[in-house]
Amino acid sequence: MRNALISAVLLSSGVVLASSDASADEGQWQPYQMPSIADKLSERGIKIPAKQLADLTQYPMNAVVGLGYCTASFVSPQGLVVTNHHCAYRAIQYNSKKEHNYIANGFLAKSKEQEPSAGPNERLYITEAVTDVSALVTQGLSQAPLIRYEEIQSKRKALIKECESDENYRCSVRSFHSGLEYYLIKQLIIRDVRLVYAPPNSVGAFGGDIDNYEYPRHSGDFTFLRAYVGKDGKPAAYSTENVPFTPKSYLKINADGVKAGDGVFAAGYPGSTSRYRLTSELKFASDWLYPTSAERYQLRIDTIKAMGDADSDIAIKYAGTLASMANRMKKYNGLLDGFKATDIIGIKQSREDDFLTWLAGDSTYQSYRTQFDQLETLLERKRIGMQSRHYFNNAQSSDLLNAANKLYRLAKEKSKPDSEREEGYQERDMKMFTARLKRIDSSFDVSVDKTLWQQDLEAYMAQEHRVAALDKMLNEEGSSSISDRLDGLYALTSLTNQEKRLAWIDADANAFETSSDPFIRLAVALYQTNMAQEKENKTLLGELSQARPGFMKAIIAYNTAKGWPVYPDANGTLRITYGMVDGYQSRDALYKQPFTRLEGITAKHTGIEPFNAPTKMLDAINEQRYGSHKVASVIEDPSSWICRLFSCLDKPEEFNSVPVNFLSSVDTTGGNSGSPVFNGKGELVGLNFDSTYEAITKDWFFNPTITRAVHVDIRYILWMMDEVDHADNLLEELELVRN
Amino acid sequence: MRNALISAVLLSSGVVLASSDASADEGQWQPYQMPSIADKLSERGIKIPAKQLADLTQYPMNAVVGLGYCTASFVSPQGLVVTNHHCAYRAIQYNSKKEHNYIANGFLAKSKEQEPSAGPNERLYITEAVTDVSALVTQGLSQAPLIRYEEIQSKRKALIKECESDENYRCSVRSFHSGLEYYLIKQLIIRDVRLVYAPPNSVGAFGGDIDNYEYPRHSGDFTFLRAYVGKDGKPAAYSTENVPFTPKSYLKINADGVKAGDGVFAAGYPGSTSRYRLTSELKFASDWLYPTSAERYQLRIDTIKAMGDADSDIAIKYAGTLASMANRMKKYNGLLDGFKATDIIGIKQSREDDFLTWLAGDSTYQSYRTQFDQLETLLERKRIGMQSRHYFNNAQSSDLLNAANKLYRLAKEKSKPDSEREEGYQERDMKMFTARLKRIDSSFDVSVDKTLWQQDLEAYMAQEHRVAALDKMLNEEGSSSISDRLDGLYALTSLTNQEKRLAWIDADANAFETSSDPFIRLAVALYQTNMAQEKENKTLLGELSQARPGFMKAIIAYNTAKGWPVYPDANGTLRITYGMVDGYQSRDALYKQPFTRLEGITAKHTGIEPFNAPTKMLDAINEQRYGSHKVASVIEDPSSWICRLFSCLDKPEEFNSVPVNFLSSVDTTGGNSGSPVFNGKGELVGLNFDSTYEAITKDWFFNPTITRAVHVDIRYILWMMDEVDHADNLLEELELVRN
Repeated sequence: MRNALISAVLLSSGVVLASSDASADEGQWQPYQMPSIADKLSERGIKIPAKQLADLTQYPMNAVVGLGYCTASFVSPQGLVVTNHHCAYRAIQYNSKKEHNYIANGFLAKSKEQEPSAGPNERLYITEAVTDVSALVTQGLSQAPLIRYEEIQSKRKALIKECESDENYRCSVRSFHSGLEYYLIKQLIIRDVRLVYAPPNSVGAFGGDIDNYEYPRHSGDFTFLRAYVGKDGKPAAYSTENVPFTPKSYLKINADGVKAGDGVFAAGYPGSTSRYRLTSELKFASDWLYPTSAERYQLRIDTIKAMGDADSDIAIKYAGTLASMANRMKKYNGLLDGFKATDIIGIKQSREDDFLTWLAGDSTYQSYRTQFDQLETLLERKRIGMQSRHYFNNAQSSDLLNAANKLYRLAKEKSKPDSEREEGYQERDMKMFTARLKRIDSSFDVSVDKTLWQQDLEAYMAQEHRVAALDKMLNEEGSSSISDRLDGLYALTSLTNQEKRLAWIDADANAFETSSDPFIRLAVALYQTNMAQEKENKTLLGELSQARPGFMKAIIAYNTAKGWPVYPDANGTLRITYGMVDGYQSRDALYKQPFTRLEGITAKHTGIEPFNAPTKMLDAINEQRYGSHKVASVIEDPSSWICRLFSCLDKPEEFNSVPVNFLSSVDTTGGNSGSPVFNGKGELVGLNFDSTYEAITKDWFFNPTITRAVHVDIRYILWMMDEVDHADNLLEELELVRN
Repeated sequence: MRNALISAVLLSSGVVLASSDASADEGQWQPYQMPSIADKLSERGIKIPAKQLADLTQYPMNAVVGLGYCTASFVSPQGLVVTNHHCAYRAIQYNSKKEHNYIANGFLAKSKEQEPSAGPNERLYITEAVTDVSALVTQGLSQAPLIRYEEIQSKRKALIKECESDENYRCSVRSFHSGLEYYLIKQLIIRDVRLVYAPPNSVGAFGGDIDNYEYPRHSGDFTFLRAYVGKDGKPAAYSTENVPFTPKSYLKINADGVKAGDGVFAAGYPGSTSRYRLTSELKFASDWLYPTSAERYQLRIDTIKAMGDADSDIAIKYAGTLASMANRMKKYNGLLDGFKATDIIGIKQSREDDFLTWLAGDSTYQSYRTQFDQLETLLERKRIGMQSRHYFNNAQSSDLLNAANKLYRLAKEKSKPDSEREEGYQERDMKMFTARLKRIDSSFDVSVDKTLWQQDLEAYMAQEHRVAALDKMLNEEGSSSISDRLDGLYALTSLTNQEKRLAWIDADANAFETSSDPFIRLAVALYQTNMAQEKENKTLLGELSQARPGFMKAIIAYNTAKGWPVYPDANGTLRITYGMVDGYQSRDALYKQPFTRLEGITAKHTGIEPFNAPTKMLDAINEQRYGSHKVASVIEDPSSWICRLFSCLDKPEEFNSVPVNFLSSVDTTGGNSGSPVFNGKGELVGLNFDSTYEAITKDWFFNPTITRAVHVDIRYILWMMDEVDHADNLLEELELVRN
């Protein structure tokens, strides 16, 4: 009775005290910033010294790696890497054959000899150095916008070229705080990546699109890969002679995981956020850009689905495309729903008003008001440009036209010295350029490409912003319908043939200009308009490169004055975020608890994809074969101060299962997939893989009461290896510790 | 930080200690039983003496009234009654006109003169006495089944007749524990009921079918009526001369409501449960009866909806029918989903096995094994009978055929002395009989009746259990299709005419037998088969009336030995149930908290029915006009022992709103709608109106961890009266108390 009362009282209070300070867990911090937030880390129970986290050459940051689009980490001295199943999906697909369908059945190499290549294009990137090059990039720039833009680009390219003297390194110069700062990032490239252990899709993607962005969640979204290098220890392309890579360090794994209230942190490569954008930018996105894009997107999804229903070849070819489109569509819906649920525009506007009031009264920064007003003017121009070009840009959506555009652009760029070429068309880009051109075939069908393109062309024709060169193509031999006209284009092109398509890489501009291939002809015809647009855009960027950094300087001063966190928007570079294991109030009277358990899988299981857990897993759950991974309670150690206070809670054994997924308040976004989640001691306790639907708007505004990231619990991964898949060889490689 | 941790820890533990004893809150108790569970009541913090609750002539039980299908209670010395909006729906509909649509806009009488009649058929029933008549009914019964059945019926009828000597009383003799006991129930009938105050449908049924059986819930499911009597204080039919009734007592209202963990109890008229049924009966229901009925039901719903979409007259006529069908369909789905989610058959089977083992070893009761086996044999016969008659019974589903069947039966019954007539055909039943015959028109359309009937006839023809008289009708003038055949029937009948239909009430059997009305002819043709079925059924009931009480005797002894609660299945008689204000674990990691708040209405509001809260309410919420109904916290009083223990919880103001609905673990079923929910002192704190989807199977098996009833919080009702509708005249009538 006492127990009952207490749990009822607390569970019912509807109180979610996610943090005593509303902005406490916000921030995707550059590692070097960690000492500046040492107090906050320590308050969350993170014991590993902030200085150590700032050092990319030390544990644990030197064990964190990028996949280009995801994050991963080393977990053994023999180059074993763990990331999300969805991040390794391409590698699993690459190795799946009719005889052994690893997507459906999973894969486990019982020895290194059985580890196949993850594919010729898979890479691991290890960030070895991050150097502030702000002064080098921004000093002595021209005031003329287009020249200024080109100067920034050429300085960046020069820095990259110098840094990439060794072919084993990839370098980039990234803008931070909208051009206020620039950092040169140097990454070691591992080129021989192999597949080691992947659960079946029914585990790795349990719940599929239905559960995507949702919680409670029960996903086994993990896969193990391995880095290989040449015998000399240096990166090398795949070869049977290669040996496992010895990382500078690898993560310890805490097999006891975490409990509710524990402090955690995650490291990874978040892609992009817009937290410092102006209210007018959010308003444009919320009122025009997202709704417009979502509508077109939904039409494309519905079209591909309908065509796939009628033709199973199309269904197979576009399965991957549809999956990523469904993901993006859910993100659009989440954004639009989120803007409805919370008046983020109102909140941002009120903060912006407060900022401007502060600005007016601050003697150091009041002159920046001019730059703010200038920025608003530029942004208005940007919006008008985006809206007027929107339908024309969509009208080039055909994969074949897109390839033709890029190929002709390449021919044009090749006439310049390498260092002056546009990014993406330099010698360093050619491998990826070729790979992308090849990859078209794997998810391309003429009828789908044509139908989608036609939809975009019809939308283009229904509005006023027209481009003569495109109109000319549409009206050529005027009498026929668009559909017939497009049929003619597809019938006459040879770009559908991979070999012929790739041959254009070596062709010169003249070859394009004299070609009779209709897609090549169209690319040539549209080139001037596209280049004019690009020039207009670069000019605007040159102007923004003056206005934005000034605004950011003032905003940083304002945030600092308010005691709010100051970290740059995500830009695909290595960041650290910290938070607490915590549930959240999803809706009135509906509370989502931070841990899900194995039995939740059984409850969701219907036998029908995506809720078709494998029988051997269900058996292990039903027989309660939890092994050493059983957790009596997800509350603190009964001897802790909390449980001394809560002497009432005499049933700490109530959880009695293996945790599957858990929530924390760390601040993540796309690119953080696969990020290692650490306990306070810097030991691996989970893998980040998603965030909740209510939190999708966090790219614009971090709301601490509802923003939660979803992680695979390390105990679930270990349980799978131990009790379900018997991956003993891998378990032996790991360094498991207990509390 | 400390707060955060504590709330996170407890909210996250996934522990739901609904009760320390799993069966603690189970039970729909007869009031006289209350002293036997005094300890349990006291343990839940119910302070009102159990003896007082057992006394129907004392507060609060003498303030509880029945509506025939719902429960209500007196809340003022002037006969003011409160019940659910959905229980008073007919009364609101009766008074709604084009000029003043009370369903859409709500209704508030600002003085008694403005209170209209709730309709000629509305009744309030006040249970004044419950007398054990088991000995009178069961002694000296014949062993011959049919005779035994008839003897029981005639003893019941005699007791009722004697009890109903005064026309102001309605009496009934109800079987408890499947015929082990019988009670004579004497109820005063109030015949002049008036409408006083009803919120608009957008409040009273906020969430509509979508939220029905769901939680979190935000329904203002309440309406006030008033009882009127003649100037002599005695019940009378509606008359402008009548005066408000002075009830023996009326409920005090606690304007401070309840908090999580508080003990509560509810009184009312639960309709029917099957908690003591055998496992084989549950299995039959779960595997055949419910799926078969659900399938037919869904077809009927889909058919009516489709016809309503095409014809708005049909849509209007069948709106009420569809609403109640949707409710029942959700119940079917909830039953089927519940049986999937929890292996109730397995649990019941294992309990039954344990019971039989106990029985074998118990010297007093071991002889009852014979009765158990006999019961199983009878139940098997019952199942075979139900299955074989199922399609034939459905094949009489036409409203017109049903009326014809009843009218011909009446003519036959009228040839007997009143006391020997079948129940439902006695003089005391004639008012209701006529009312039902009249009411057909309000929800009847020939095309719908025909389409649904034809579906049932086609299902009948597709199976083997045929009745010659029905087959003959179907094959008459053999060549035409069923559809044409039925068109002929509807074209020739005069039963669609209310006056002509009612005229048959006074016709003798010969008039039926010589009629050329095709529905009357069919009723006459089917009469013998229906009577033979009835006789077969009565014979079975006679046999069951010997076997079931024996089994119940043994089960009661077994339950008593186990220390489990022993209360009779619900049977529409007055019961008391107790429990605790408590949330519940809905799914893995998903916890539903016990209180919803006003802001949840705004969050659900879309402006589109059923989520179209009135503007004046939304304004009051947005302006936080909570008045004196604001609740700082739904946890215990900060000075209580819980909060001394939880000194950590220093934010007791976190709720900061008006509670709308709340959950408790009281044990309810259909008929408990409108039941007063009392705090431990016996003061009104809410109205029961629904239960949760997960708990729908509770009619068969009470699972304490998920079984929750949903109540309208009294504070929401008072807030509506005070801040939204300004029902000051009514507020003055109520006796409001505070903690």
